[in-house]
Amino acid sequence: MKAPWITYRPEIKVLDCTVRDGGLVNDHQFSDDFVRAVYRTCVAAGVDYMEIGYKNSEAIFDRKKCGPWRFCREEDVRRIVGDNATSLKLTAMIDAGKTDWQNDVWAKKDSVFDTMRVAFYVHQLAEAVEMIQDAHEKGYETWANLMAASTAKETEIDQALEILSQTPVSTLVVVDSYGSMYAEQIEQLVQKYLGFGRQTGKEIGVHAHNNQQLAFANSIEAIIHGANRIDASLGGLGRGAGNCPMELLLGFLRNPKFKLRPVYAALEHHIAPLRSQIEWGPYPEYIMTGQFNQHPRAAIETRENSQLKDRYVAFYDRVVMQ
Amino acid sequence: MKAPWITYRPEIKVLDCTVRDGGLVNDHQFSDDFVRAVYRTCVAAGVDYMEIGYKNSEAIFDRKKCGPWRFCREEDVRRIVGDNATSLKLTAMIDAGKTDWQNDVWAKKDSVFDTMRVAFYVHQLAEAVEMIQDAHEKGYETWANLMAASTAKETEIDQALEILSQTPVSTLVVVDSYGSMYAEQIEQLVQKYLGFGRQTGKEIGVHAHNNQQLAFANSIEAIIHGANRIDASLGGLGRGAGNCPMELLLGFLRNPKFKLRPVYAALEHHIAPLRSQIEWGPYPEYIMTGQFNQHPRAAIETRENSQLKDRYVAFYDRVVMQ
Repeated sequence: MKAPWITYRPEIKVLDCTVRDGGLVNDHQFSDDFVRAVYRTCVAAGVDYMEIGYKNSEAIFDRKKCGPWRFCREEDVRRIVGDNATSLKLTAMIDAGKTDWQNDVWAKKDSVFDTMRVAFYVHQLAEAVEMIQDAHEKGYETWANLMAASTAKETEIDQALEILSQTPVSTLVVVDSYGSMYAEQIEQLVQKYLGFGRQTGKEIGVHAHNNQQLAFANSIEAIIHGANRIDASLGGLGRGAGNCPMELLLGFLRNPKFKLRPVYAALEHHIAPLRSQIEWGPYPEYIMTGQFNQHPRAAIETRENSQLKDRYVAFYDRVVMQ
Repeated sequence: MKAPWITYRPEIKVLDCTVRDGGLVNDHQFSDDFVRAVYRTCVAAGVDYMEIGYKNSEAIFDRKKCGPWRFCREEDVRRIVGDNATSLKLTAMIDAGKTDWQNDVWAKKDSVFDTMRVAFYVHQLAEAVEMIQDAHEKGYETWANLMAASTAKETEIDQALEILSQTPVSTLVVVDSYGSMYAEQIEQLVQKYLGFGRQTGKEIGVHAHNNQQLAFANSIEAIIHGANRIDASLGGLGRGAGNCPMELLLGFLRNPKFKLRPVYAALEHHIAPLRSQIEWGPYPEYIMTGQFNQHPRAAIETRENSQLKDRYVAFYDRVVMQ
């Protein structure tokens, strides 16, 4: 009788997106101490990648409103990690339409980053391919995060994967931006992404959202079907309902290189205290946008408005009936 | 291409255990208004069964300490449901070792209950079989809830299922008392229970706990592999980390007889306000007991102690290192 859940697959690598995705809750206004704590936790816990933030354009996002992790200038990041003399790889997200990648992504030799993750909607594929090519030529490992796969047509996804699999990108990520997917949909997408990516040696990743309390379960499902790159965050910190909680993922993986104790220490000292300042998690409004495959925007606005939050019937009528 | 998640299986029936399992958080001290609201919600939402509480012995549990839903006297229940002139079936849980079932389970003709759910640990199998036989002869539908299946040996479970499948019990429930199971373990147990129960016409049920945020995912997994009886509770209210949230389950089932709006109304008016009085949900202490397949007792005691709660590293050392 097979019991795969008590063994492990050494190829699996874990990416921490606490600061990058969590920054969408607080305009990336994390203190240096917080970011340093996340960095040290990732190193101590054996996490493979840490995504510190976005490299977004200062022409689009206001540095007065957004904290440094929206821009990830080299000097800001080095203030936290020095030259990063660890085995933890550092990633930044660069998203199509919001990034001056020609100028803001420096040559790898001048950067503390190892990897650029290119995020894009399916209609932005052309720019994404240019961004991948550019970052690759500058010396980075690149990943492709095709966002909102739950609302793209299957034929669009097929075309995007066919093109992406011919680029130098290392990893194709199944992204459940709206937290709407069930395990069977994750299975179908992982198999699809593998079908295109396998022949050119691409790894498959997964980035889940927790609207339906399925982020961890869907990450496991992706692993079962062959995904080897898994996003997670401390306490699930992330936009709206949040992401796959790191403490759950590392407990499942059973690889002795991963350590749970530093993760629980970070939850105790840095994540739990944050809950009095910012909110994330599978609140009913986020469940509803997930159930109906909608962007969490309306749910976020509702929960930020003390007159509207926790009025679930009114929100249900808005989401379902309009 | 199959898309089973957008269709439905009409055989699936849903059991609400909000008051019964939630009562383990507050000694079943729910007001009549609260229990009536849950009852009306179940009726309006198309839920099939409502479990109002335990029929425990007043010689073992103190009526001064425990509310009426620990005992489920007929007069208390009828105060809420009258003669229950609805299609909602009412269930009580009777557990081995804690129930004076010979006297406290009346003949069905004198009772407002439809179903008795017999809960027991594997070493209590002999009494459970007597209880099933007794309740069946008194006129009830019976279910068998073999608790803590994650710590029973496979050979013990096999023996229990072999015996249970020869009783008049209608349903064999896969119970993940500690919230420790992954989807693959649920799959294995559902297939095992079906293997024994199918030949004598038993249905398979699932009762999940949410320690690892897998209660909903594991309930879906059980459904995929053939379980047709699913426990859930409003807002996931239940002991420790809680149960499978009803709002998630009904959103998944896609059977038009189930209505989500009354569930969100109950969350707004009755469940959300309760969170300022009692606590449940997948807090880190519950994650840890789930990850290490332990009874949630230590986690519950820790979270009830303001000096000890949210000290995750100390709790980790206690759970893992001792």
